[in-house]
Amino acid sequence: MSDSENPPKDTIPPLPSNKDLRITLIGTGTIGLSFAAFHLTHLPSPSQLTIYDVRPNLSTYISNTLPQYLPPSVPASTISSIYIATTLPAAVQNAHIIQESGPENLAFKSKLWAEIEEHALKDALLWSSTSGILASAQAKDMVDKSRVLVVHPYNPPHVMPLLELVPSPHTSAQVIQRTRAFWEACGRVPIHLKKETTGFVANRLAFALLREAIHLVDEGVVDVRELDAIVESSMGPRWAVAGPFKSYHAGGGEGGLEGFFKNIGGTVQECWADTGKVEVGAGWEEEVFRQAKEAYGRVDVGERDRVTRRVLEVLREEKEGKEHSQA
Amino acid sequence: MSDSENPPKDTIPPLPSNKDLRITLIGTGTIGLSFAAFHLTHLPSPSQLTIYDVRPNLSTYISNTLPQYLPPSVPASTISSIYIATTLPAAVQNAHIIQESGPENLAFKSKLWAEIEEHALKDALLWSSTSGILASAQAKDMVDKSRVLVVHPYNPPHVMPLLELVPSPHTSAQVIQRTRAFWEACGRVPIHLKKETTGFVANRLAFALLREAIHLVDEGVVDVRELDAIVESSMGPRWAVAGPFKSYHAGGGEGGLEGFFKNIGGTVQECWADTGKVEVGAGWEEEVFRQAKEAYGRVDVGERDRVTRRVLEVLREEKEGKEHSQA
Repeated sequence: MSDSENPPKDTIPPLPSNKDLRITLIGTGTIGLSFAAFHLTHLPSPSQLTIYDVRPNLSTYISNTLPQYLPPSVPASTISSIYIATTLPAAVQNAHIIQESGPENLAFKSKLWAEIEEHALKDALLWSSTSGILASAQAKDMVDKSRVLVVHPYNPPHVMPLLELVPSPHTSAQVIQRTRAFWEACGRVPIHLKKETTGFVANRLAFALLREAIHLVDEGVVDVRELDAIVESSMGPRWAVAGPFKSYHAGGGEGGLEGFFKNIGGTVQECWADTGKVEVGAGWEEEVFRQAKEAYGRVDVGERDRVTRRVLEVLREEKEGKEHSQA
Repeated sequence: MSDSENPPKDTIPPLPSNKDLRITLIGTGTIGLSFAAFHLTHLPSPSQLTIYDVRPNLSTYISNTLPQYLPPSVPASTISSIYIATTLPAAVQNAHIIQESGPENLAFKSKLWAEIEEHALKDALLWSSTSGILASAQAKDMVDKSRVLVVHPYNPPHVMPLLELVPSPHTSAQVIQRTRAFWEACGRVPIHLKKETTGFVANRLAFALLREAIHLVDEGVVDVRELDAIVESSMGPRWAVAGPFKSYHAGGGEGGLEGFFKNIGGTVQECWADTGKVEVGAGWEEEVFRQAKEAYGRVDVGERDRVTRRVLEVLREEKEGKEHSQA
């Protein structure tokens, strides 16, 4: 944790303890509701959560839609205790954390933050769930640009542990530090990106593999279902346990990652030189979309998320067991 | 399963039942021994397994090295019942399956298969574990080129379910079909690649992601350990449960994969356009290798494999439960 080597001056008070924390969510699409489900499982009382959106009939919509995101441990009746705000000032004025998951539209977000800045507590953390609009752009109309931080989840955030923290050059170290502390205390994995980069890290990595996957299907080497089966029975479970660098470092034996490249760097370079360079809209779409539809129809994401939770539970147990045995 | 639509004429008899099956392994590096461990857990008797290598003191080497690959269910005493052959003809003459995991060297492999062809049963399956030398090249000195098939594991094969079956244009459909049936009966995931392609599929996919990972570390966006943490807490567990196409097909909701690209195809293309193009030997190595060494030292692969088995066990249970409930 490189930040802890240079602890910032404590000019912002720490977040209140969990029982006194107030969180406001803005936007009720799939990401917003998934975050709502997450917070409901972690906050002692649902009345600590406020939701705001311009959507008509918001209360009814939330009552109908949110239950599907809740784990069995949270009764659906909990939802009636969430505070549904009817104006933005009312939504944000008391919150310690304000998390927006609104439209992916710079004009919307920059206007929103400028307005929030007028009404929010001076120390409130301001988080955007955006998957692509940089914090530096979002904060452009604010007086104090040090407050906005991208907190990008891996979908769906009520299941997946990752949060990419992507500050702008203006974001203060304290904002990053308090955000990280919040997510770590919740058992999540917040990773601080040191530079604002197109698509952040997780999507860039996943899309690089996806591009090669599309290329191989487009070339007729395997079909969509076979390609998925390959990933599910090899690098998926492997990388759930040990990321790519750790895996290849292990694969190199005593020589580590250097030994790995000494052994098969030639093959790696041959694969890189031969990598497909498909583009969006270049004509592979029709067949690949057709195969996906034929293979999967409508995916049961509830089932997928249930199994994912079981896998994550094994990984969490192992990690905690290891930390315990090292303590 | 596209092959089953055109069942080949049954000119080759099926493999004998498991209790009568004889398997010969050639080569005792990490892949060869890992396959030995796999077969010992699946064959009724260790005397059904033969191992051959030109390594000096082979029996002692195997007794010392193989136990670390065995799961607790297989006692190390089993090893003494393996038949250690002292000549190639003796090793192969009675085997139904001959699996080579020798040096990654075309001259070695083509000479080996030509020699094996002289001594092996006419119907024996001839498998190569190579990660890169195409079956068409390996079979070049054989009279009957229809018999050799690449059966490429994901390391280590005693743990990981994937086997890439990569025939040459000469390999017969029966050889592919019998090979697939063998691995499916063992609960593994054999995937038939329709074209011989550099690095096959799994490594091409993994190396595409690795390339972007190296680029992001090289750019200073995250370090090696942070990059691994990102993958371990996002696409690793996700892809263990649902491969990339299935995941993005689900992510597109009712629109499926097409809907996904309609929603964020622009971001995908921006990431693709910005993808790093690091090359092996281009100067990123020193710092990346240093970080991997500092982060991980020597990885405990036994621990990694134990946790991977637990993850795979969850996935297997879920898959079988689903098949059961659909039956």
